[in-house]
Amino acid sequence: MPTFVQILDFVGTFAFAISGIRLASAKRFDWFGAYVVGFVTAIGGGTIRDLLLDVTPGWMTDPIYLICTGLALLWVILFSKTLIHLNNTFFIFDSIGLALFTVVGMGKSLALGYPVWVAIIMGSLTGAAGGVIRDVFINEIPLIFRKEIYAMACVFGGIIYWLCQQAGLGSYGCQIVCGISVFLIRILSVKYKICLPTLKGSSD
Amino acid sequence: MPTFVQILDFVGTFAFAISGIRLASAKRFDWFGAYVVGFVTAIGGGTIRDLLLDVTPGWMTDPIYLICTGLALLWVILFSKTLIHLNNTFFIFDSIGLALFTVVGMGKSLALGYPVWVAIIMGSLTGAAGGVIRDVFINEIPLIFRKEIYAMACVFGGIIYWLCQQAGLGSYGCQIVCGISVFLIRILSVKYKICLPTLKGSSD
Amino acid sequence: MPTFVQILDFVGTFAFAISGIRLASAKRFDWFGAYVVGFVTAIGGGTIRDLLLDVTPGWMTDPIYLICTGLALLWVILFSKTLIHLNNTFFIFDSIGLALFTVVGMGKSLALGYPVWVAIIMGSLTGAAGGVIRDVFINEIPLIFRKEIYAMACVFGGIIYWLCQQAGLGSYGCQIVCGISVFLIRILSVKYKICLPTLKGSSD
Repeated sequence: MPTFVQILDFVGTFAFAISGIRLASAKRFDWFGAYVVGFVTAIGGGTIRDLLLDVTPGWMTDPIYLICTGLALLWVILFSKTLIHLNNTFFIFDSIGLALFTVVGMGKSLALGYPVWVAIIMGSLTGAAGGVIRDVFINEIPLIFRKEIYAMACVFGGIIYWLCQQAGLGSYGCQIVCGISVFLIRILSVKYKICLPTLKGSSD
Repeated sequence: MPTFVQILDFVGTFAFAISGIRLASAKRFDWFGAYVVGFVTAIGGGTIRDLLLDVTPGWMTDPIYLICTGLALLWVILFSKTLIHLNNTFFIFDSIGLALFTVVGMGKSLALGYPVWVAIIMGSLTGAAGGVIRDVFINEIPLIFRKEIYAMACVFGGIIYWLCQQAGLGSYGCQIVCGISVFLIRILSVKYKICLPTLKGSSD
Repeated sequence: MPTFVQILDFVGTFAFAISGIRLASAKRFDWFGAYVVGFVTAIGGGTIRDLLLDVTPGWMTDPIYLICTGLALLWVILFSKTLIHLNNTFFIFDSIGLALFTVVGMGKSLALGYPVWVAIIMGSLTGAAGGVIRDVFINEIPLIFRKEIYAMACVFGGIIYWLCQQAGLGSYGCQIVCGISVFLIRILSVKYKICLPTLKGSSD
């Protein structure tokens, strides 16, 4: 029987894959292209993290991520007309994925003995880098560089993890507080339209 | 004296490099840019595979790929006007490269002890990921996500490899059947204009 | 107290980060996006090199690169109006960075026992690949593939390193001659508008 974390991991992977597949479908990708973009959105961040940490990427040890992306593709093919009514649901799922992936990325880095500032970067990469590769593949400027609080939610969550650790909380407690923080920061920043300032164009 | 496989490897590398150099030249890249795009088209897929498998990329152990790309650049510079008449020849060479790279990628992964589904992905990456990096560099949506059976030929070839293995065929026999399958699937799908379905745009 | 090389490293990182942040600001990235693009411009080349050499990327062992990118972002935010008058200064800084990064990349590869032709590629990657990732992120064709002598300065510098080594010069001497060569080739090629030939479009 899957654990609670495995179920959340599945939900997050599914939501990330859906986001990749939908953006790919808007660009008229074929099923294969959509599948690849969905898969890379889901596992790209963790793969970059694992290459940097010099460990075997998680998806190479368990076919669940391939299967989960396949189910996401099937879902989009079957229910593409009704998907637009589920935007809110996917937003919640995506935020769950973001929170969980951040916690997983941080935990893995800390377990390997890296300092907390490296772990915060690895948590943010796990959560947000898949979306950057997705946007490069569909030939758009990565969304997270221009709009909304997305990767910054991971960074803040990582800092909160570190503060909890400093306050003497156990690693299980740190992870729960960190995950909830990422989730809430993401949800609230979208609800209240909180953005970072934009740089004024000063290039030649 | 080079073996038969080494000659095929050279032919495939040359064809992949030519494809990168020609697309770069259409975008008015200089000689250096064209060389880099050609080189990355040829070795990019194998490099990503080797990073994921945590082994030293093949081109770092033998300068033949650098030399081969140099010859491809020289060829395009000298014969750019006549190249268009050779489209069919390059298509055959490219398909040979695709087949061989798939077999090499699968073989390397299986030899390292990975399960067959990982090997199929690694074979497809070896064959098709170089073209994706090429298209990112020339700022186009990767061709293989939108048109024609390309990476899917690698995937089908990989599945056929596995079926042969299940049927008790030796690894040498599996490789030959797999390579011929990839080559034929690619050639026939282009000849008979077989495509995958496209997803209908459903994104917001 | 920092050594002379560490100061040059700081100057180079700062200049590379500024170049990324300014191009990001021209595309209306927010502060976070600009920071990421600046950081990747500065450390992207070295990271790809370290992944290929299978060693831990330098920026994961010392937070100085994160801090340096933060200072570069602060600088651009505070002085964006006056930056345009400093173009010449940044060009010099950027060339210092290019020279130093090439030397560092070559030295690291040679110290790990790689042949000199691999070291030349690693030096060029260290100097120039960050700018390629920067241009992919801002959705432009990489500048170094189309205009000016940039990565070619690294390649020539690397060949000069090898010639010095063949002439019996010690590794310290080789590094100084190589660094000065990269710097001068870059500066002079821009001053005298020396470019590589462009390929004529021959693609279908």
